Amino acid sequence: MTKDTAPDYKPTDRTKLKRIRERAHYDRETIYDILDAGLLCHVGYTIDDQPYVTPTCHWREGNAVYWHGSSASKALKAQRQGIPVCVTVSHMDGLVMARSGLHHSINYRSVMLFGTAHLVEGRDAKEASLKAFMDRIAPGRWEDCKPVTGQEIKGTMILGLEIDEVVAKVRTGPPADDEEDYALDIWAGVVPITTRIGKPVPDPRLKAGIEVPAYLKKIKIG
Amino acid sequence: MTKDTAPDYKPTDRTKLKRIRERAHYDRETIYDILDAGLLCHVGYTIDDQPYVTPTCHWREGNAVYWHGSSASKALKAQRQGIPVCVTVSHMDGLVMARSGLHHSINYRSVMLFGTAHLVEGRDAKEASLKAFMDRIAPGRWEDCKPVTGQEIKGTMILGLEIDEVVAKVRTGPPADDEEDYALDIWAGVVPITTRIGKPVPDPRLKAGIEVPAYLKKIKIG
Repeated sequence: MTKDTAPDYKPTDRTKLKRIRERAHYDRETIYDILDAGLLCHVGYTIDDQPYVTPTCHWREGNAVYWHGSSASKALKAQRQGIPVCVTVSHMDGLVMARSGLHHSINYRSVMLFGTAHLVEGRDAKEASLKAFMDRIAPGRWEDCKPVTGQEIKGTMILGLEIDEVVAKVRTGPPADDEEDYALDIWAGVVPITTRIGKPVPDPRLKAGIEVPAYLKKIKIG
Repeated sequence: MTKDTAPDYKPTDRTKLKRIRERAHYDRETIYDILDAGLLCHVGYTIDDQPYVTPTCHWREGNAVYWHGSSASKALKAQRQGIPVCVTVSHMDGLVMARSGLHHSINYRSVMLFGTAHLVEGRDAKEASLKAFMDRIAPGRWEDCKPVTGQEIKGTMILGLEIDEVVAKVRTGPPADDEEDYALDIWAGVVPITTRIGKPVPDPRLKAGIEVPAYLKKIKIG
């Protein structure tokens, strides 16, 4: 589906912004870009009236977001039962320093996604999904690694969530001060925040003579 | 209270790790350090059986975590009613590249905090709390800014959550491969991830001749 024909996601009661509505986005491109820029999502779910927020890695394939963990995980076992979940991905891009204290803000991109998760089943489908996860981070790594075993695949649970009820929120740009405050002698602007991927650090037990693969020097997050 | 006499937080059913227990920490120092290193938390709460995960800034004062927003915010209005919340703070420190696909991991520090929020009330208490928030980011900024007004304070809701039912999870160090895999000719190690604070970018409408304050060059997050 090309960008031109892709439908926007429809705002619902849960995803319609009540305030500062200009920060809300429901177009596929914005939402996919924010999801794909991140590696870490926060999954919200409720067990016995207690909400839990679990940080975990996510990846996107087509119009769904995926995350995984041990098949023994209590959180994942609960989430696969079709309980409502909320998956949030957030990037902080800058500290917005305004002239007045209460106009300080954050430049950010976030996606909040609602629905019920489904289980990815079958060895082939699970393995393909894990490969997609690795390919998102370091294309080529999957092929370099020791092949996964059936037992490992069995011990791994993968959950997916269709992107349907979703909203992106984005703030960019300089502070928005009250008009009369622009005359004040106070520094104002944005302090940028970025995610830096460092130089790979070899395992102390790495065999001699193995070079850092090129795909580990091209990782981008944030 | 000094570190030596500070009691650890007691694990509960919700905060006791069932698997990989060596990653769990219940000591005050570890938990405070992780909370204080971050600016962004994810607040989980449930409305009509639907969990929500909202990214927002947090700060710590003593043994409590605080966050704020508009007094008109539907999320904050729900959270102040004494509903259970879960506040999670996460830092990704590195990509752990193992020799086998399923042993890949993330180096991270996270805190998961459970409880019910309380409202910070009264102009003085609210103003002091907002100053503490600013001081955590840029000490000196609060004094430089235009003083907050009573109306602004009224329009701001601040919620606090005592740190009591809490767990930190930390993974550090190189991959943990199966013993026989260390002989494989596969690069393994850690790709570090850090948060970079950039050079402040002046507001296009900044009055001429105002220098960047020193406190904006010393910000640390992550």
